[in-house]
Amino acid sequence: MKVAWAGSREAFQVSDRMAKLVANDPVFEKFSKPMLGRKELFKNTLRKAAYAWKLINDLRLTEEEAKWLRHYIDEPNYTDLHWEMFVPAIEGQGTKEQKKKWLPLAQTMQIIGTYAQTELGHGSNVQGLETTATFDRQTDEFVMHSPTLTSSKWWPGGMAKVATHAIVYARLIIDGLFHGVHGFIVQLRSLEDHSPLPGLTLGDIGMKFGHGTYNTMDNGVLRFDHVRIPRNQMLMRVSQVTKEGKYAQSDVPRQLLYGTMVSVRQTIVADASKALSRAVCIATRYSVVRRQFGSRNGGPETQVIDYKTQQSRLFPLLASAYAFRFVGEWLKSLYIDVKQRLEANDFSTLPETHACTAGLKALTTAATADGIEECRKLCGGHGYLISSGLPELFAFYVPACSYEGENVVMMLQVARFLVKTVSNLGYKQPVGTAAYLGRVTPLLQNNCAVQTAEDWLNPDAILEAFEARAARMVIGCGERLAMFENPEEGFAELSIDLVEASLAHCQLITVSVFIQKLNHEIPGNGVKRSLEVLCYVYALFLLHKHQGDFLATGYLTPKQASLANEQLRTLYSKVRPNAIAFVDSFNHMDHYLCSVLGRYDGNVYPKLYEAAWKDPLNDSDIVDGIQQYVQPILKQKLHYAKL
Amino acid sequence: MKVAWAGSREAFQVSDRMAKLVANDPVFEKFSKPMLGRKELFKNTLRKAAYAWKLINDLRLTEEEAKWLRHYIDEPNYTDLHWEMFVPAIEGQGTKEQKKKWLPLAQTMQIIGTYAQTELGHGSNVQGLETTATFDRQTDEFVMHSPTLTSSKWWPGGMAKVATHAIVYARLIIDGLFHGVHGFIVQLRSLEDHSPLPGLTLGDIGMKFGHGTYNTMDNGVLRFDHVRIPRNQMLMRVSQVTKEGKYAQSDVPRQLLYGTMVSVRQTIVADASKALSRAVCIATRYSVVRRQFGSRNGGPETQVIDYKTQQSRLFPLLASAYAFRFVGEWLKSLYIDVKQRLEANDFSTLPETHACTAGLKALTTAATADGIEECRKLCGGHGYLISSGLPELFAFYVPACSYEGENVVMMLQVARFLVKTVSNLGYKQPVGTAAYLGRVTPLLQNNCAVQTAEDWLNPDAILEAFEARAARMVIGCGERLAMFENPEEGFAELSIDLVEASLAHCQLITVSVFIQKLNHEIPGNGVKRSLEVLCYVYALFLLHKHQGDFLATGYLTPKQASLANEQLRTLYSKVRPNAIAFVDSFNHMDHYLCSVLGRYDGNVYPKLYEAAWKDPLNDSDIVDGIQQYVQPILKQKLHYAKL
Repeated sequence: MKVAWAGSREAFQVSDRMAKLVANDPVFEKFSKPMLGRKELFKNTLRKAAYAWKLINDLRLTEEEAKWLRHYIDEPNYTDLHWEMFVPAIEGQGTKEQKKKWLPLAQTMQIIGTYAQTELGHGSNVQGLETTATFDRQTDEFVMHSPTLTSSKWWPGGMAKVATHAIVYARLIIDGLFHGVHGFIVQLRSLEDHSPLPGLTLGDIGMKFGHGTYNTMDNGVLRFDHVRIPRNQMLMRVSQVTKEGKYAQSDVPRQLLYGTMVSVRQTIVADASKALSRAVCIATRYSVVRRQFGSRNGGPETQVIDYKTQQSRLFPLLASAYAFRFVGEWLKSLYIDVKQRLEANDFSTLPETHACTAGLKALTTAATADGIEECRKLCGGHGYLISSGLPELFAFYVPACSYEGENVVMMLQVARFLVKTVSNLGYKQPVGTAAYLGRVTPLLQNNCAVQTAEDWLNPDAILEAFEARAARMVIGCGERLAMFENPEEGFAELSIDLVEASLAHCQLITVSVFIQKLNHEIPGNGVKRSLEVLCYVYALFLLHKHQGDFLATGYLTPKQASLANEQLRTLYSKVRPNAIAFVDSFNHMDHYLCSVLGRYDGNVYPKLYEAAWKDPLNDSDIVDGIQQYVQPILKQKLHYAKL
Repeated sequence: MKVAWAGSREAFQVSDRMAKLVANDPVFEKFSKPMLGRKELFKNTLRKAAYAWKLINDLRLTEEEAKWLRHYIDEPNYTDLHWEMFVPAIEGQGTKEQKKKWLPLAQTMQIIGTYAQTELGHGSNVQGLETTATFDRQTDEFVMHSPTLTSSKWWPGGMAKVATHAIVYARLIIDGLFHGVHGFIVQLRSLEDHSPLPGLTLGDIGMKFGHGTYNTMDNGVLRFDHVRIPRNQMLMRVSQVTKEGKYAQSDVPRQLLYGTMVSVRQTIVADASKALSRAVCIATRYSVVRRQFGSRNGGPETQVIDYKTQQSRLFPLLASAYAFRFVGEWLKSLYIDVKQRLEANDFSTLPETHACTAGLKALTTAATADGIEECRKLCGGHGYLISSGLPELFAFYVPACSYEGENVVMMLQVARFLVKTVSNLGYKQPVGTAAYLGRVTPLLQNNCAVQTAEDWLNPDAILEAFEARAARMVIGCGERLAMFENPEEGFAELSIDLVEASLAHCQLITVSVFIQKLNHEIPGNGVKRSLEVLCYVYALFLLHKHQGDFLATGYLTPKQASLANEQLRTLYSKVRPNAIAFVDSFNHMDHYLCSVLGRYDGNVYPKLYEAAWKDPLNDSDIVDGIQQYVQPILKQKLHYAKL
């Protein structure tokens, strides 16, 4: 099962080796983070990042290994932006000469880069950015400027205190004319003494949700006061400005830019299963240790995992973790395929892949964020302790719902794709994940044939149900849209329904990918059978949760929906005996989980007790403030106290 | 509208006066909390608590005023436990003599008390507590002891560092026989020098979710090593132990104990609307300030509140805040009624009130916790900043889902009540909120008559829909339960469905209370009409969200469900013009909101910018750690660096 989760034996080995490397090195200790002030915390992170970079070099780690190493260090820092945004942006948008100049510097970290797109007043709408880059023909330079307060760059990680360079997105202006938003390489700090360069205002934007989490990152604010950069620091692969101030577009297709977005979002989908599996692992292990009620004749109480109500909340999340793992793996292969096609100037699958990635980004991050908090609640009161690991994991994870494409905006992009696909149905056969829309007629006509609860244990029945639901919702939206004279107005007015239809479409993808996965050989004794149970749990849980859709579209009868629910309950009993095996397969080390409740050895209570004493308040019996602010109350001398 | 929200002009004035008193006093400043370490934070809280107590005395505030004052100080501390748990426990469970001795001490705070029920291994199941109180006839004492690690008292607020006394719940043992769990008054600390008394281990259980939030509270651990207390410190109103070691129950009905639970939970319901309204206020104000996309001809972008997708997430929460406000008000009157009845030995309405309070506690806290996080997401990236106020509000609020009755356990109590009510239908007419179950025949037979979207703007149609849904789900569960030979086994097996039916029942209560409210006179021009819109939004939002239930029970047709959804969309347009008025009516001061995004004056961006600079990382351009851990990387001298 561990291999099935990791994807391959090799993948398991790499990840396992890096996990152990991190777990066994005291530099990467992280339990004490919540007790550090912002400055200490930040300094500690800088140390870990330097140490990690040294390890990567000393041990000559591969790129893959380095990625896992950073993952297990489990602490956002400036290197994330450098490797995941700065370097890829130059690779994707730089000319040959620019790459030749900048990449070697970046790859050896002689410069450290960040990615400055969002502004105080502008997030999702890149075209609304206000920062300007005005071409000065006299000096062959661009003048970078922040004309308003809302144009202040805001959020870029690593920018406040560390980065020496940034890719800055700004409105290109030549001779007073606006030529779209472009990326510029701007140096932020002296490479000698690290001080901010003249004309720049640089600072940290302040504390964020959680203790450690993103407070280990110096998300920054940046303002320009007419800062000059050479013309050749505009990223010019797609568009160029000549010495004469002529703006031109090369024949490199603009669609290439979507490739980067697809790449980043695909990583986010892959990360969702990591975060969710972490929470599920903690909650499952603790649900086995924790007992409450149901003691008979003075015997031990019932393990909370044996309660149906606990199972009905926990097991669908366990199944979702696997579903997201497999859909992430599949999306990665889709991305590799589209990348190869792009390189061969084949853009045919890009819209579908783009919609797919956007939708899965929204689906998996939303479900993961909610799922982590649900796991926390499943741990009862103790889940509220930082030492449970869950509050920090939640605070760390939730921004994924907003960054790199806000989730509702993402779903609306899926909706645009679906609406277009449907309106083209007459003459263009939909492909890939939208192929089912080419079979609308049977999907609209045929209703579900299920007659017994057993009938639901059938991948075809499940797939058809999800296809029919999605198709009917999408077609329904299409029909209502057609009633509007102005399509944009209709789209805005019906946006709520469109988001619901998009979700149905994306859930179909996750379900069908899970089913596909099981159509292949899966090594390991009984592994495939166990995964089948999870696949059914995932699908039938969604079906029950959204039974309104299935019933409203007329595909299911109430009786059939109730049979699905009955089957779901039976499936929970089949998950129960393997629950611990399922979460152990994630191969999460105790160091990585950072949770007293989720310990592999189950030794929860003694360790909770032990952890408590490390709180600073326990340094002394009588803490600072008691004498000054409590004793006067007790001794009825408050009137004379100095407060 | 402010009066409608507050309940009465007098209530508004008291609350408004206290809010201003707190907001204008620099001692109660709270923006800097997230930057304080645990010890400083705690000391600061002790100071605020002492200062508040002084104010209460100096200004001779009434109990009502003192409550509001503490509410607006907005910082959990030991006095919460003292006033809300310790004092009421003595009042409710103490004998006349005990009250005479202890209440004056407590009321003047010559002693400070806490409430020690939960243990490391025991939360919901009070009968499973392990701490023992063994009677020693020789000395006329009880010996308090913690026989296991899991019996350590764990969580009581104020216990770790402040409280001098505690009500400790323990298993009463006389001559080796167990006589149930009882409360005992135990002194924890010397009144002279505040040191823990011999035989006691006392400490803090460690950091909790969030920065300020409950980290201002010293939730504690307590272990007993054969600690002796006089016999008369067992709370003996309901059960007594004589000098001879005879255990007896007085004729005071045990049901009285439920009264306390009902009281505490009723307060939690009232508090839900406060927390939710706070989040909704921030998100609504910011949604008006924030603009994104939709700029035409270079004009300003669209206010995000004008997007249907934003409205469909925000306005139902706005409506929920009002719904919870009114249901909280109603529950309070129900509680006052049941209290009077209890005093007159009338227990007839207690089971119904108990179920009602448990269910509404679960419904309102779950929806509020989720709603706060949804509001945070509705604020996009900036909602992730601590200065938005939302992360701290969320972290502060979520334990309400677990404490004072875990939400699923609560819903199962409602389920027990409903199952019993239904099984008694033949000979016992249900009353109060369960009265509709007396009309099952028409509710099972008649289906919805709605034919147009307009038809949904009818309280009777809505009420009947919610009644029919709840009745059909409850009866359905009853029928399936009857198929089990062992009822307890059936209850366990069907517990998931039972929780869903209980939720349907509780949603019916909130909807019908909202409708009732509108049947009364509501002063203010157009106030009633505006509230009607919110009432419909609340009901139709629930109907859409749970349309699976309404369709599965066959009460609605897909067409009718779709008409409801259409009407809901229209209603959002009616809420929009009054959105700001609705949230201004909460009368939340900026101090209370503690949110840059939710400022009354809408001056968001300059203040966000200003707030950023207060972060400790901005104390200097080049922070500690750069020279040591970043420069060696940039200068390619990492190999020689000391890491």
